[in-house]
Amino acid sequence: MHTLIIGAAGMIGRKLTQRLAGQEKLGAHAVTELTLADVVEPAPPEGFSGTAHCVQADLSEPGTAEDLVAGRPDVIFHLAAIVSGEAEKDFEKGYRINLDGTRALFEAIRRAHETDGYRPRVVFASSIAVVGAPLPFPIPDEFHTTPLTSYGTQKAICELLLSDYSRHGFFDGIGIRLPTVCIRPGKPNAAASGFFSSILREPLVDQEAVLPVPESIRHWHTSPRSAVGFMLHAATLDLAAVGPRRNLSMPGLSATVGEQIEALRRVAGDAAVALIRREPDALITQMCEGWAAGFDASRARALGFTAEDSFDEIIRVHIEDELGGSL
Amino acid sequence: MHTLIIGAAGMIGRKLTQRLAGQEKLGAHAVTELTLADVVEPAPPEGFSGTAHCVQADLSEPGTAEDLVAGRPDVIFHLAAIVSGEAEKDFEKGYRINLDGTRALFEAIRRAHETDGYRPRVVFASSIAVVGAPLPFPIPDEFHTTPLTSYGTQKAICELLLSDYSRHGFFDGIGIRLPTVCIRPGKPNAAASGFFSSILREPLVDQEAVLPVPESIRHWHTSPRSAVGFMLHAATLDLAAVGPRRNLSMPGLSATVGEQIEALRRVAGDAAVALIRREPDALITQMCEGWAAGFDASRARALGFTAEDSFDEIIRVHIEDELGGSL
Repeated sequence: MHTLIIGAAGMIGRKLTQRLAGQEKLGAHAVTELTLADVVEPAPPEGFSGTAHCVQADLSEPGTAEDLVAGRPDVIFHLAAIVSGEAEKDFEKGYRINLDGTRALFEAIRRAHETDGYRPRVVFASSIAVVGAPLPFPIPDEFHTTPLTSYGTQKAICELLLSDYSRHGFFDGIGIRLPTVCIRPGKPNAAASGFFSSILREPLVDQEAVLPVPESIRHWHTSPRSAVGFMLHAATLDLAAVGPRRNLSMPGLSATVGEQIEALRRVAGDAAVALIRREPDALITQMCEGWAAGFDASRARALGFTAEDSFDEIIRVHIEDELGGSL
Repeated sequence: MHTLIIGAAGMIGRKLTQRLAGQEKLGAHAVTELTLADVVEPAPPEGFSGTAHCVQADLSEPGTAEDLVAGRPDVIFHLAAIVSGEAEKDFEKGYRINLDGTRALFEAIRRAHETDGYRPRVVFASSIAVVGAPLPFPIPDEFHTTPLTSYGTQKAICELLLSDYSRHGFFDGIGIRLPTVCIRPGKPNAAASGFFSSILREPLVDQEAVLPVPESIRHWHTSPRSAVGFMLHAATLDLAAVGPRRNLSMPGLSATVGEQIEALRRVAGDAAVALIRREPDALITQMCEGWAAGFDASRARALGFTAEDSFDEIIRVHIEDELGGSL
């Protein structure tokens, strides 16, 4: 089986690559060929016995999608996007990468389908940014998509395209609305939501972290490991059971910042919690209040998607996957 | 005030043109200039004392949108689309006209905005086809858009674009989800939904009509006059009250085919009803069962949009507007 990952150099892309390269199968099929594409050339997968192609590719450039589809990958993971802040600041770039890039991919698949009946599984990484305030809690599966960012708009549009191309039989697509991924490994970044990870990640390695919002803020989380799990399950799931509504809000953990902090205390003690410095930021607080506090996600759960039940577990996953298993 | 109607040669476009040309105002403003555009050159408006431009224009052709925006119309009604059946059969044409054409218009406005601060009101004709079965009854304002046609997909995507461009301040947009327009004047057509109009329109002029579905089928209707009323109200409404959710399901009348027929009997007698010939069609019945039976539409009603309360009234509107006021 040939698997293509677009956006393979990103955080989820790298983890997905290593999972596939490590297990060398996807469902019942052996993964014998991996194509890894991103705007920066992805690193080759470690320990993979099959054939790996690492490709520098920008989907929004003419011909790129055709090149990627030319090898007729059986499964395509499309994770590539520019992030929310950049898509909001650079309107044209956001639409070019996040909408036109995705559409170019879908069109290349459609043309291949019309040439030789090609019909891959397409797993698309969508986002909870497709919904916008005011929001109920929990958000039902049938809630409308009224994004309040251009990024969320582009994801919502791609969801609609994915359903329509699937309905026409051009490919067999599934859209995965990822919760905020927490604990995001790596360095602190400038994202407004970055503190959800940093208030846990930094104290776990004896570093200070800044908390800009009240402990009462509630948000919707999943670990990087679960995010990769969603992708793998989506790639192998029987989509006949999904029907024409191809975009699913994933399960996750709804937790307040206070609950995150208490989980940190249980796992790493008071000294870790003491490293969280409160620096209230009215703008970030206001943004957070508009974000999703949690989804019902009953369709996804019924289809076998699973996520963590507690922040203790999310922290333990981080310690296992990023910190060698112990503090 | 300069008003542009794109899709001016269509049924709603022609009626909207005549209303504007007749009243020569829109809200508090005098309409002094009318630009009428369509893929076939629209007829000049009758009795209009201002300046009228009739333009053959295909929005999906490069440069067309820029030309239409060059005159900086204060209000733009965008009604142009290829219909559901054609968009489903000709996938590429549907996306080219219904999505890319609309996006070209929005982009031309954005570039004009960036040049000189231009910021028109944009009224976009959307459709109940943005939702797809299974559907609750009535459909709440917050129900998700999961269209089951490419036409509905294209409308849902344009709704998302309209909200995002409005949020960025490039224009002040409002999307109007029109119910099925009934009684549609003119000749019977091939649309699967055509019978909703023809079972009333033909008997009112002593002609036979075919009913392919059971009388229990329930659907969501508004008269052509109300549809034009929605457009005019949308053009003058204070959009600050609407907020960022710019797409509104319009009010309408939820009625069964049996209720339509009883209204016909009250208005035109048993002889008219006797002209309806039952020819059950399983495929059309199945399609109808997947369509919207009715919307809650409370947001639109609260914003002052109004429609008919009974099919008797819808039939009387048809007699007044199409049959000279009497049978």
